[in-house]
Amino acid sequence: MTNKQQLNSSYHIRPARLEDFEEIYAIFQAVLAEGSTYSYTEKEMTPERSLAYWMSAPGTFCYVADVGGKVAGMAALRPNRTGRGGHVANASFIVHKDFRGQGIAKALGAHVLQAAKEKGYLSMQFNFVVSTNKIAVKLWQSLGMQIVGTLPGGYNHAEHGFVDVYIMHRRLDDMA
Amino acid sequence: MTNKQQLNSSYHIRPARLEDFEEIYAIFQAVLAEGSTYSYTEKEMTPERSLAYWMSAPGTFCYVADVGGKVAGMAALRPNRTGRGGHVANASFIVHKDFRGQGIAKALGAHVLQAAKEKGYLSMQFNFVVSTNKIAVKLWQSLGMQIVGTLPGGYNHAEHGFVDVYIMHRRLDDMA
Repeated sequence: MTNKQQLNSSYHIRPARLEDFEEIYAIFQAVLAEGSTYSYTEKEMTPERSLAYWMSAPGTFCYVADVGGKVAGMAALRPNRTGRGGHVANASFIVHKDFRGQGIAKALGAHVLQAAKEKGYLSMQFNFVVSTNKIAVKLWQSLGMQIVGTLPGGYNHAEHGFVDVYIMHRRLDDMA
Repeated sequence: MTNKQQLNSSYHIRPARLEDFEEIYAIFQAVLAEGSTYSYTEKEMTPERSLAYWMSAPGTFCYVADVGGKVAGMAALRPNRTGRGGHVANASFIVHKDFRGQGIAKALGAHVLQAAKEKGYLSMQFNFVVSTNKIAVKLWQSLGMQIVGTLPGGYNHAEHGFVDVYIMHRRLDDMA
């Protein structure tokens, strides 16, 4: 597939199926190798741990952006904590680099916020938004997420060295 | 032992030993039952998970405040994240309720900050300081920790309902 074919490719968001996992794992590993957004190492994120992270850990729901049966991006919705913190949701997102710039991340974000509300969560919290990822910060802000904390030098960026990390949050009770 | 005997009891901070775990577990469970500081449920924090949390997870160092061979309080030092977040330490603390008000938490805090620095961490981050725990907030501030984020209504407090949670942080490179 050329970039041209992929641009403006139509996608739909659907729950992930186990047979999507091989693609999800490849997309995850490629992003870890970039070293600009996630803290985990490629090595520690074995297939087993990656499956738990994206799909099978308790309370986790995984959604994919499907482009003609291929995974163009994925999101995981999960409780941020258990027990007395269990009313707060958390989510992770990745869009395959060949499918960026088409609104897929925003569509996944909106889908996950709606799903979190429907599952009864009171708020959504992102724990680790790397400050140099300005596209992501703007995108989450456009979905109502606000920066509620800054971790000074919290991320060792492959290109920029130690950079700040944001914690982002939004209440869900004022969503339509 | 009466409260009077316990007051001004002399303690020293030492590395935890496996034989301390039974006391550590009892102290942990009692604090979870209070429902005013930690998010975890008593049930999910089985002996196996509690042992990992306090002592045996990768990179975890446990210290206790020892009063005549009894555990009066404990602290765990661990990496806050792996990989590109692995330069930031995290810690947990509990003081047994019969031994509070004697400076044990502060001594454990100072010990752990020093240990984190010696192990090469660049900063310390507490992810979940419940805002109504004002004694803890003041104590950590007296050790140079600053509030760098506020999670609105992040904790479902047993007595007060939904209350804010602070993220606290300090750099370690300016420590003596």
